[in-house]
Amino acid sequence: MATGAAAVIIGNEVLTAKVEEQNGAFLIQRLRQAGVPLRLLTIVPDEVDAIVEAVSRARAVAQYVFTSGGIGPTHDDVTVRAVALALGRAVVRHPELEQEVRAYFGERLTPQGLRLAEVPEGAELLRREGVWYPVLSCAGVFMLPGVPQLFRIQLETVLARLPCSPVFLKTVHVAASEPEIAGVVDQVALAFPEVGIGSYPQFERGLDHKVRITIEAARAELVEAATADLLARLPADRVVRVLA
Amino acid sequence: MATGAAAVIIGNEVLTAKVEEQNGAFLIQRLRQAGVPLRLLTIVPDEVDAIVEAVSRARAVAQYVFTSGGIGPTHDDVTVRAVALALGRAVVRHPELEQEVRAYFGERLTPQGLRLAEVPEGAELLRREGVWYPVLSCAGVFMLPGVPQLFRIQLETVLARLPCSPVFLKTVHVAASEPEIAGVVDQVALAFPEVGIGSYPQFERGLDHKVRITIEAARAELVEAATADLLARLPADRVVRVLA
Repeated sequence: MATGAAAVIIGNEVLTAKVEEQNGAFLIQRLRQAGVPLRLLTIVPDEVDAIVEAVSRARAVAQYVFTSGGIGPTHDDVTVRAVALALGRAVVRHPELEQEVRAYFGERLTPQGLRLAEVPEGAELLRREGVWYPVLSCAGVFMLPGVPQLFRIQLETVLARLPCSPVFLKTVHVAASEPEIAGVVDQVALAFPEVGIGSYPQFERGLDHKVRITIEAARAELVEAATADLLARLPADRVVRVLA
Repeated sequence: MATGAAAVIIGNEVLTAKVEEQNGAFLIQRLRQAGVPLRLLTIVPDEVDAIVEAVSRARAVAQYVFTSGGIGPTHDDVTVRAVALALGRAVVRHPELEQEVRAYFGERLTPQGLRLAEVPEGAELLRREGVWYPVLSCAGVFMLPGVPQLFRIQLETVLARLPCSPVFLKTVHVAASEPEIAGVVDQVALAFPEVGIGSYPQFERGLDHKVRITIEAARAELVEAATADLLARLPADRVVRVLA
Protein backbone atom coordinates (compact mmCIF):
# COMPACT_ATOMS: atom_id res chain seq x y z
CA MET A 1 0.00 0.00 0.00
CA ALA A 2 1.17 3.50 -0.78
CA THR A 3 2.39 5.56 2.19
CA GLY A 4 3.39 9.18 2.67
CA ALA A 5 1.95 12.20 0.94
CA ALA A 6 1.79 13.85 -2.46
CA ALA A 7 0.82 17.40 -3.39
CA VAL A 8 -1.01 18.90 -6.34
CA ILE A 9 -0.67 22.69 -6.51
CA ILE A 10 -3.38 24.10 -8.76
CA GLY A 11 -2.93 27.50 -10.29
CA ASN A 12 -2.23 29.25 -13.54
CA GLU A 13 -1.13 32.17 -11.40
CA VAL A 14 1.84 30.15 -10.15
CA LEU A 15 2.85 28.65 -13.52
CA THR A 16 2.66 32.07 -15.16
CA ALA A 17 4.73 33.72 -12.42
CA LYS A 18 1.98 36.14 -11.39
CA VAL A 19 2.17 34.80 -7.87
CA GLU A 20 5.23 33.31 -6.25
CA GLU A 21 4.67 29.71 -5.23
CA GLN A 22 4.45 29.53 -1.44
CA ASN A 23 2.21 26.62 -0.53
CA GLY A 24 4.39 23.85 -1.96
CA ALA A 25 7.45 25.23 -0.19
CA PHE A 26 5.54 25.49 3.09
CA LEU A 27 4.06 22.01 2.71
CA ILE A 28 7.50 20.49 2.13
CA GLN A 29 8.84 22.03 5.36
CA ARG A 30 5.79 21.20 7.43
CA LEU A 31 5.53 17.57 6.30
CA ARG A 32 9.21 17.11 7.07
CA GLN A 33 8.64 18.33 10.63
CA ALA A 34 5.62 16.07 10.95
CA GLY A 35 7.56 13.04 9.67
CA VAL A 36 5.25 12.47 6.70
CA PRO A 37 7.40 11.62 3.65
CA LEU A 38 6.52 13.63 0.54
CA ARG A 39 6.66 11.49 -2.62
CA LEU A 40 5.67 13.88 -5.37
CA LEU A 41 4.72 17.52 -5.89
CA THR A 42 3.03 18.69 -9.07
CA ILE A 43 2.04 22.19 -10.16
CA VAL A 44 -0.72 22.17 -12.77
CA PRO A 45 -2.89 24.78 -14.48
CA ASP A 46 -6.57 25.34 -13.53
CA GLU A 47 -7.66 22.73 -16.08
CA VAL A 48 -9.83 19.77 -15.20
CA ASP A 49 -7.87 17.24 -17.28
CA ALA A 50 -4.51 18.30 -15.86
CA ILE A 51 -5.80 18.13 -12.28
CA VAL A 52 -7.49 14.75 -12.77
CA GLU A 53 -4.25 13.33 -14.16
CA ALA A 54 -2.12 14.80 -11.37
CA VAL A 55 -4.47 13.67 -8.59
CA SER A 56 -4.66 10.16 -10.05
CA ARG A 57 -0.88 9.93 -10.22
CA ALA A 58 -0.56 11.33 -6.70
CA ARG A 59 -2.99 8.71 -5.35
CA ALA A 60 -0.98 5.96 -7.03
CA VAL A 61 2.21 6.89 -5.15
CA ALA A 62 0.95 8.21 -1.81
CA GLN A 63 -1.59 7.54 0.91
CA TYR A 64 -2.51 11.20 1.43
CA VAL A 65 -2.95 13.78 -1.30
CA PHE A 66 -3.03 17.51 -0.58
CA THR A 67 -4.41 19.83 -3.22
CA SER A 68 -3.87 23.58 -3.05
CA GLY A 69 -6.13 26.05 -4.82
CA GLY A 70 -9.04 25.99 -7.22
CA ILE A 71 -11.58 26.05 -4.35
CA GLY A 72 -14.01 28.90 -4.82
CA PRO A 73 -16.93 30.27 -6.80
CA THR A 74 -15.33 31.33 -10.13
CA HIS A 75 -14.96 29.58 -13.48
CA ASP A 76 -11.33 28.69 -12.75
CA ASP A 77 -12.22 26.91 -9.49
CA VAL A 78 -12.46 23.36 -10.81
CA THR A 79 -10.73 21.36 -8.08
CA VAL A 80 -13.86 19.75 -6.61
CA ARG A 81 -14.99 18.57 -10.03
CA ALA A 82 -11.52 17.29 -10.97
CA VAL A 83 -11.01 15.44 -7.68
CA ALA A 84 -14.46 13.87 -8.06
CA LEU A 85 -13.51 12.68 -11.58
CA ALA A 86 -10.18 11.31 -10.36
CA LEU A 87 -12.03 9.37 -7.65
CA GLY A 88 -14.84 8.25 -9.97
CA ARG A 89 -17.45 10.01 -7.84
CA ALA A 90 -20.26 12.43 -8.62
CA VAL A 91 -20.27 16.07 -7.54
CA VAL A 92 -23.12 16.67 -5.12
CA ARG A 93 -24.37 19.59 -3.09
CA HIS A 94 -23.62 18.90 0.58
CA PRO A 95 -26.75 19.82 2.60
CA GLU A 96 -24.93 20.88 5.76
CA LEU A 97 -22.35 22.89 3.81
CA GLU A 98 -25.12 24.54 1.77
CA GLN A 99 -26.71 25.76 5.00
CA GLU A 100 -23.38 27.21 6.09
CA VAL A 101 -22.73 28.89 2.74
CA ARG A 102 -26.21 30.43 2.84
CA ALA A 103 -25.68 31.60 6.39
CA TYR A 104 -22.25 33.04 5.58
CA PHE A 105 -23.26 35.04 2.50
CA GLY A 106 -26.81 35.87 3.50
CA GLU A 107 -28.35 38.28 1.02
CA ARG A 108 -25.11 38.60 -0.92
CA LEU A 109 -25.35 34.94 -2.02
CA THR A 110 -25.13 34.47 -5.80
CA PRO A 111 -25.72 31.29 -7.84
CA GLN A 112 -21.92 31.12 -8.24
CA GLY A 113 -21.44 31.36 -4.48
CA LEU A 114 -23.47 28.18 -4.07
CA ARG A 115 -20.70 26.31 -5.91
CA LEU A 116 -18.90 26.43 -2.54
CA ALA A 117 -21.44 23.87 -1.27
CA GLU A 118 -20.46 21.29 -3.91
CA VAL A 119 -18.27 18.34 -2.91
CA PRO A 120 -17.23 14.96 -4.31
CA GLU A 121 -19.86 12.47 -3.16
CA GLY A 122 -19.03 11.04 0.26
CA ALA A 123 -16.68 13.88 1.22
CA GLU A 124 -16.16 14.63 4.90
CA LEU A 125 -15.95 18.16 6.24
CA LEU A 126 -12.92 18.79 8.48
CA ARG A 127 -13.62 21.76 10.69
CA ARG A 128 -11.51 24.21 12.59
CA GLU A 129 -12.63 26.81 15.07
CA GLY A 130 -12.52 30.33 13.65
CA VAL A 131 -12.58 29.32 9.97
CA TRP A 132 -16.03 29.22 8.47
CA TYR A 133 -15.25 27.04 5.43
CA PRO A 134 -14.13 23.47 6.18
CA VAL A 135 -11.46 21.33 4.48
CA LEU A 136 -13.12 18.87 2.10
CA SER A 137 -11.66 15.39 2.61
CA CYS A 138 -12.46 12.48 0.33
CA ALA A 139 -10.71 9.09 -0.01
CA GLY A 140 -7.42 10.46 1.33
CA VAL A 141 -7.55 13.64 -0.78
CA PHE A 142 -7.57 16.88 1.22
CA MET A 143 -8.68 19.95 -0.73
CA LEU A 144 -6.95 23.01 0.72
CA PRO A 145 -7.46 26.64 -0.29
CA GLY A 146 -4.79 28.32 -2.44
CA VAL A 147 -4.56 31.58 -0.50
CA PRO A 148 -1.34 31.07 1.51
CA GLN A 149 -2.67 32.33 4.86
CA LEU A 150 -5.65 29.95 4.63
CA PHE A 151 -3.57 27.10 3.23
CA ARG A 152 -1.30 27.14 6.28
CA ILE A 153 -4.15 27.18 8.76
CA GLN A 154 -6.05 24.41 7.01
CA LEU A 155 -2.97 22.25 6.55
CA GLU A 156 -2.82 22.11 10.36
CA THR A 157 -6.49 21.12 10.43
CA VAL A 158 -5.52 18.05 8.39
CA LEU A 159 -2.17 17.25 10.04
CA ALA A 160 -3.79 17.20 13.47
CA ARG A 161 -5.77 14.18 12.21
CA LEU A 162 -2.88 12.19 10.69
CA PRO A 163 -0.57 9.77 12.48
CA CYS A 164 2.94 11.25 12.39
CA SER A 165 6.39 9.75 12.95
CA PRO A 166 9.74 11.54 12.96
CA VAL A 167 12.63 10.90 10.58
CA PHE A 168 16.24 10.61 11.76
CA LEU A 169 19.02 12.40 9.87
CA LYS A 170 22.81 12.80 9.98
CA THR A 171 24.93 14.88 7.61
CA VAL A 172 28.62 14.31 6.84
CA HIS A 173 30.77 17.08 5.33
CA VAL A 174 33.60 15.69 3.18
CA ALA A 175 36.65 17.51 1.77
CA ALA A 176 36.83 15.50 -1.46
CA SER A 177 35.13 15.87 -4.83
CA GLU A 178 31.98 13.90 -5.53
CA PRO A 179 33.54 11.60 -8.16
CA GLU A 180 36.34 10.68 -5.70
CA ILE A 181 33.89 9.41 -3.09
CA ALA A 182 31.03 8.24 -5.32
CA GLY A 183 32.19 4.59 -5.14
CA VAL A 184 32.15 4.61 -1.34
CA VAL A 185 28.75 6.27 -1.17
CA ASP A 186 27.37 3.68 -3.62
CA GLN A 187 28.61 0.85 -1.38
CA VAL A 188 26.92 2.28 1.71
CA ALA A 189 23.68 2.84 -0.20
CA LEU A 190 23.79 -0.76 -1.38
CA ALA A 191 24.53 -2.11 2.11
CA PHE A 192 21.65 -0.16 3.72
CA PRO A 193 18.63 -0.33 1.43
CA GLU A 194 16.27 1.10 4.08
CA VAL A 195 18.43 4.19 4.55
CA GLY A 196 18.11 7.21 2.26
CA ILE A 197 21.57 8.44 1.30
CA GLY A 198 22.00 11.73 -0.57
CA SER A 199 25.18 13.26 -2.00
CA TYR A 200 25.21 17.02 -2.64
CA PRO A 201 28.24 18.78 -4.13
CA GLN A 202 28.80 22.29 -2.75
CA PHE A 203 29.95 25.05 -5.06
CA GLU A 204 30.08 28.05 -2.75
CA ARG A 205 33.51 29.58 -2.27
CA GLY A 206 35.22 29.48 1.11
CA LEU A 207 33.64 26.24 2.38
CA ASP A 208 35.91 23.70 4.09
CA HIS A 209 34.13 20.79 2.37
CA LYS A 210 33.09 19.90 -1.17
CA VAL A 211 30.31 17.40 -0.61
CA ARG A 212 27.54 16.93 1.95
CA ILE A 213 26.27 13.42 2.45
CA THR A 214 22.91 12.98 4.14
CA ILE A 215 21.86 9.75 5.85
CA GLU A 216 18.27 9.32 6.93
CA ALA A 217 15.85 6.62 7.98
CA ALA A 218 12.77 5.99 10.10
CA ARG A 219 14.91 4.30 12.80
CA ALA A 220 17.78 6.02 14.60
CA GLU A 221 19.90 2.86 14.85
CA LEU A 222 19.86 2.42 11.07
CA VAL A 223 21.17 5.97 10.64
CA GLU A 224 23.91 5.28 13.21
CA ALA A 225 24.98 2.06 11.50
CA ALA A 226 25.06 3.56 8.00
CA THR A 227 26.97 6.60 9.23
CA ALA A 228 29.55 4.39 10.96
CA ASP A 229 29.91 2.33 7.79
CA LEU A 230 30.39 5.46 5.67
CA LEU A 231 33.01 6.88 8.07
CA ALA A 232 34.89 3.58 8.06
CA ARG A 233 35.06 3.61 4.25
CA LEU A 234 35.97 7.28 3.71
CA PRO A 235 39.60 8.43 4.01
CA ALA A 236 39.67 9.72 7.62
CA ASP A 237 41.52 12.92 6.68
CA ARG A 238 38.73 13.95 4.31
CA VAL A 239 35.89 13.82 6.86
CA VAL A 240 35.42 17.40 8.08
CA ARG A 241 32.49 16.90 10.45
CA VAL A 242 29.39 14.88 11.24
CA LEU A 243 26.21 16.80 12.06
CA ALA A 244 23.27 15.24 13.90
CA MET B 1 1.08 19.26 -31.35
CA ALA B 2 2.03 20.11 -27.78
CA THR B 3 3.53 23.57 -27.26
CA GLY B 4 5.16 25.33 -24.34
CA ALA B 5 7.34 23.81 -21.67
CA ALA B 6 7.14 21.46 -18.70
CA ALA B 7 9.60 20.96 -15.85
CA VAL B 8 10.69 17.92 -13.86
CA ILE B 9 12.65 18.83 -10.73
CA ILE B 10 14.56 15.79 -9.51
CA GLY B 11 15.69 15.63 -5.95
CA ASN B 12 15.03 13.94 -2.65
CA GLU B 13 16.82 16.91 -1.09
CA VAL B 14 13.97 19.18 -2.18
CA LEU B 15 11.11 16.86 -1.21
CA THR B 16 12.68 16.24 2.20
CA ALA B 17 13.23 19.96 2.84
CA LYS B 18 17.02 19.64 3.13
CA VAL B 19 17.40 22.16 0.35
CA GLU B 20 14.93 24.88 -0.47
CA GLU B 21 13.58 24.56 -3.98
CA GLN B 22 15.06 27.32 -6.15
CA ASN B 23 15.24 26.03 -9.71
CA GLY B 24 11.53 25.61 -10.28
CA ALA B 25 10.81 29.11 -8.99
CA PHE B 26 13.57 30.56 -11.18
CA LEU B 27 12.39 28.62 -14.24
CA ILE B 28 8.82 29.89 -13.80
CA GLN B 29 10.02 33.51 -13.78
CA ARG B 30 12.47 33.10 -16.61
CA LEU B 31 10.04 31.27 -18.93
CA ARG B 32 7.46 33.95 -18.31
CA GLN B 33 9.95 36.63 -19.42
CA ALA B 34 10.85 34.55 -22.45
CA GLY B 35 7.19 34.07 -23.41
CA VAL B 36 7.34 30.27 -23.17
CA PRO B 37 4.15 29.02 -21.45
CA LEU B 38 4.80 26.55 -18.64
CA ARG B 39 2.22 23.73 -18.62
CA LEU B 40 3.32 21.55 -15.72
CA LEU B 41 5.96 21.40 -13.01
CA THR B 42 6.66 18.20 -11.10
CA ILE B 43 9.05 17.53 -8.22
CA VAL B 44 10.01 13.87 -7.94
CA PRO B 45 12.47 11.83 -5.86
CA ASP B 46 15.76 10.49 -7.30
CA GLU B 47 14.01 7.31 -8.42
CA VAL B 48 14.09 6.02 -11.97
CA ASP B 49 10.41 5.03 -12.12
CA ALA B 50 9.21 8.36 -10.76
CA ILE B 51 11.37 10.31 -13.23
CA VAL B 52 10.36 8.16 -16.22
CA GLU B 53 6.69 8.73 -15.38
CA ALA B 54 7.11 12.48 -14.87
CA VAL B 55 9.16 12.97 -18.06
CA SER B 56 6.65 10.94 -20.10
CA ARG B 57 3.76 13.01 -18.77
CA ALA B 58 5.70 16.24 -19.37
CA ARG B 59 6.38 15.24 -22.99
CA ALA B 60 2.67 14.55 -23.50
CA VAL B 61 1.67 18.09 -22.54
CA ALA B 62 4.62 20.22 -23.72
CA GLN B 63 7.04 20.65 -26.58
CA TYR B 64 10.07 21.30 -24.38
CA VAL B 65 10.91 19.51 -21.14
CA PHE B 66 13.46 20.84 -18.66
CA THR B 67 14.83 18.49 -16.03
CA SER B 68 16.75 19.78 -13.03
CA GLY B 69 19.18 17.61 -11.08
CA GLY B 70 20.29 14.02 -10.99
CA ILE B 71 23.19 14.71 -13.37
CA GLY B 72 26.45 13.53 -11.83
CA PRO B 73 28.58 10.58 -10.85
CA THR B 74 26.82 9.19 -7.74
CA HIS B 75 24.25 6.44 -7.22
CA ASP B 76 21.43 8.97 -6.92
CA ASP B 77 22.21 10.56 -10.30
CA VAL B 78 19.77 8.62 -12.45
CA THR B 79 18.37 11.32 -14.74
CA VAL B 80 20.16 10.22 -17.91
CA ARG B 81 18.97 6.65 -17.47
CA ALA B 82 15.40 7.71 -16.69
CA VAL B 83 15.17 10.14 -19.62
CA ALA B 84 16.53 7.43 -21.94
CA LEU B 85 13.83 5.04 -20.68
CA ALA B 86 11.11 7.66 -21.11
CA LEU B 87 12.29 8.21 -24.71
CA GLY B 88 12.71 4.49 -25.44
CA ARG B 89 16.42 4.96 -26.14
CA ALA B 90 19.55 3.19 -24.93
CA VAL B 91 22.13 4.84 -22.67
CA VAL B 92 25.44 5.12 -24.53
CA ARG B 93 28.83 6.58 -23.79
CA HIS B 94 29.28 9.70 -25.93
CA PRO B 95 32.81 9.56 -27.45
CA GLU B 96 33.36 13.32 -27.56
CA LEU B 97 31.99 13.82 -24.05
CA GLU B 98 34.15 10.96 -22.78
CA GLN B 99 37.24 12.75 -24.08
CA GLU B 100 36.18 15.90 -22.28
CA VAL B 101 35.44 14.10 -19.02
CA ARG B 102 38.87 12.41 -19.18
CA ALA B 103 40.55 15.72 -19.91
CA TYR B 104 38.69 17.47 -17.10
CA PHE B 105 39.41 14.95 -14.34
CA GLY B 106 42.85 13.75 -15.57
CA GLU B 107 44.40 11.44 -13.00
CA ARG B 108 41.55 11.97 -10.56
CA LEU B 109 39.13 10.18 -12.90
CA THR B 110 37.27 7.30 -11.24
CA PRO B 111 35.00 4.69 -12.85
CA GLN B 112 32.06 6.62 -11.36
CA GLY B 113 33.32 9.85 -12.92
CA LEU B 114 32.96 8.27 -16.35
CA ARG B 115 29.19 8.11 -15.79
CA LEU B 116 29.27 11.78 -16.76
CA ALA B 117 30.02 10.69 -20.35
CA GLU B 118 26.78 8.67 -20.60
CA VAL B 119 23.84 10.10 -22.57
CA PRO B 120 20.55 8.89 -24.08
CA GLU B 121 21.37 7.63 -27.57
CA GLY B 122 21.24 10.46 -30.12
CA ALA B 123 21.62 13.25 -27.54
CA GLU B 124 23.09 16.55 -28.65
CA LEU B 125 25.56 18.49 -26.52
CA LEU B 126 24.63 22.16 -26.07
CA ARG B 127 27.76 24.10 -25.19
CA ARG B 128 28.46 27.37 -23.48
CA GLU B 129 31.73 29.19 -23.16
CA GLY B 130 33.21 28.98 -19.70
CA VAL B 131 31.26 25.85 -18.59
CA TRP B 132 33.09 22.60 -19.19
CA TYR B 133 30.07 20.25 -19.02
CA PRO B 134 27.42 20.71 -21.74
CA VAL B 135 23.63 20.53 -21.51
CA LEU B 136 22.41 17.16 -22.79
CA SER B 137 19.52 17.66 -25.20
CA CYS B 138 17.46 14.78 -26.57
CA ALA B 139 14.07 14.82 -28.34
CA GLY B 140 13.08 18.13 -26.73
CA VAL B 141 14.26 17.13 -23.24
CA PHE B 142 16.97 19.38 -21.78
CA MET B 143 18.86 17.88 -18.83
CA LEU B 144 20.01 20.71 -16.57
CA PRO B 145 22.16 20.44 -13.45
CA GLY B 146 20.50 20.74 -10.04
CA VAL B 147 23.03 23.11 -8.45
CA PRO B 148 21.18 26.45 -8.66
CA GLN B 149 24.14 28.52 -9.92
CA LEU B 150 24.73 26.04 -12.75
CA PHE B 151 21.02 25.56 -13.45
CA ARG B 152 20.60 29.28 -14.12
CA ILE B 153 23.57 29.49 -16.46
CA GLN B 154 22.59 26.40 -18.40
CA LEU B 155 18.95 27.42 -18.67
CA GLU B 156 20.21 30.40 -20.69
CA THR B 157 22.22 28.03 -22.87
CA VAL B 158 18.95 26.37 -23.81
CA LEU B 159 16.71 29.46 -24.02
CA ALA B 160 19.13 31.13 -26.44
CA ARG B 161 18.25 28.33 -28.85
CA LEU B 162 14.44 28.43 -28.50
CA PRO B 163 12.01 30.64 -30.42
CA CYS B 164 10.36 32.99 -27.92
CA SER B 165 7.22 35.12 -28.06
CA PRO B 166 5.89 37.51 -25.42
CA VAL B 167 2.57 37.25 -23.60
CA PHE B 168 0.29 40.26 -23.04
CA LEU B 169 -1.31 40.84 -19.65
CA LYS B 170 -3.68 43.28 -17.96
CA THR B 171 -4.82 43.20 -14.34
CA VAL B 172 -8.05 44.69 -12.98
CA HIS B 173 -8.48 45.43 -9.26
CA VAL B 174 -12.10 45.15 -8.15
CA ALA B 175 -13.69 46.31 -4.87
CA ALA B 176 -16.25 43.50 -4.70
CA SER B 177 -16.11 39.98 -3.30
CA GLU B 178 -15.34 37.09 -5.64
CA PRO B 179 -18.84 35.51 -5.46
CA GLU B 180 -20.41 38.86 -6.36
CA ILE B 181 -18.47 39.13 -9.63
CA ALA B 182 -18.00 35.45 -10.47
CA GLY B 183 -20.93 35.48 -12.91
CA VAL B 184 -19.46 38.40 -14.88
CA VAL B 185 -16.01 36.85 -14.98
CA ASP B 186 -17.51 33.58 -16.24
CA GLN B 187 -19.26 35.41 -19.09
CA VAL B 188 -16.05 37.08 -20.23
CA ALA B 189 -14.14 33.79 -20.05
CA LEU B 190 -16.84 32.17 -22.18
CA ALA B 191 -16.84 34.99 -24.74
CA PHE B 192 -13.02 34.94 -25.16
CA PRO B 193 -11.87 31.31 -25.24
CA GLU B 194 -8.34 32.26 -26.39
CA VAL B 195 -7.82 34.60 -23.45
CA GLY B 196 -6.65 33.31 -20.06
CA ILE B 197 -8.70 34.90 -17.29
CA GLY B 198 -7.75 34.45 -13.65
CA SER B 199 -9.59 35.59 -10.53
CA TYR B 200 -7.59 35.96 -7.31
CA PRO B 201 -9.23 37.00 -4.03
CA GLN B 202 -7.00 39.17 -1.82
CA PHE B 203 -7.03 38.71 1.93
CA GLU B 204 -4.44 41.24 3.09
CA ARG B 205 -5.78 43.99 5.32
CA GLY B 206 -5.77 47.59 4.13
CA LEU B 207 -6.10 46.91 0.40
CA ASP B 208 -8.58 49.02 -1.59
CA HIS B 209 -9.73 45.99 -3.61
CA LYS B 210 -10.87 42.45 -2.83
CA VAL B 211 -10.21 40.65 -6.11
CA ARG B 212 -7.56 40.83 -8.83
CA ILE B 213 -8.60 39.70 -12.28
CA THR B 214 -5.86 38.90 -14.78
CA ILE B 215 -6.42 38.87 -18.53
CA GLU B 216 -3.73 37.47 -20.79
CA ALA B 217 -3.25 36.22 -24.31
CA ALA B 218 -0.68 35.87 -27.06
CA ARG B 219 -2.19 38.85 -28.94
CA ALA B 220 -2.49 42.35 -27.47
CA GLU B 221 -5.80 43.12 -29.22
CA LEU B 222 -7.45 40.09 -27.61
CA VAL B 223 -6.40 41.32 -24.18
CA GLU B 224 -7.76 44.79 -25.00
CA ALA B 225 -11.11 43.41 -26.19
CA ALA B 226 -11.57 41.09 -23.20
CA THR B 227 -10.64 43.86 -20.76
CA ALA B 228 -13.12 46.24 -22.39
CA ASP B 229 -15.82 43.56 -22.19
CA LEU B 230 -15.08 42.92 -18.52
CA LEU B 231 -15.15 46.64 -17.67
CA ALA B 232 -18.46 47.04 -19.50
CA ARG B 233 -20.02 44.21 -17.45
CA LEU B 234 -18.64 45.14 -14.00
CA PRO B 235 -20.42 47.80 -11.89
CA ALA B 236 -18.33 50.90 -12.73
CA ASP B 237 -18.06 52.01 -9.09
CA ARG B 238 -16.37 48.73 -8.15
CA VAL B 239 -13.47 48.96 -10.62
CA VAL B 240 -10.53 50.41 -8.67
CA ARG B 241 -7.88 50.37 -11.38
CA VAL B 242 -6.60 48.65 -14.53
CA LEU B 243 -2.89 47.81 -14.67
CA ALA B 244 -1.06 47.12 -17.94
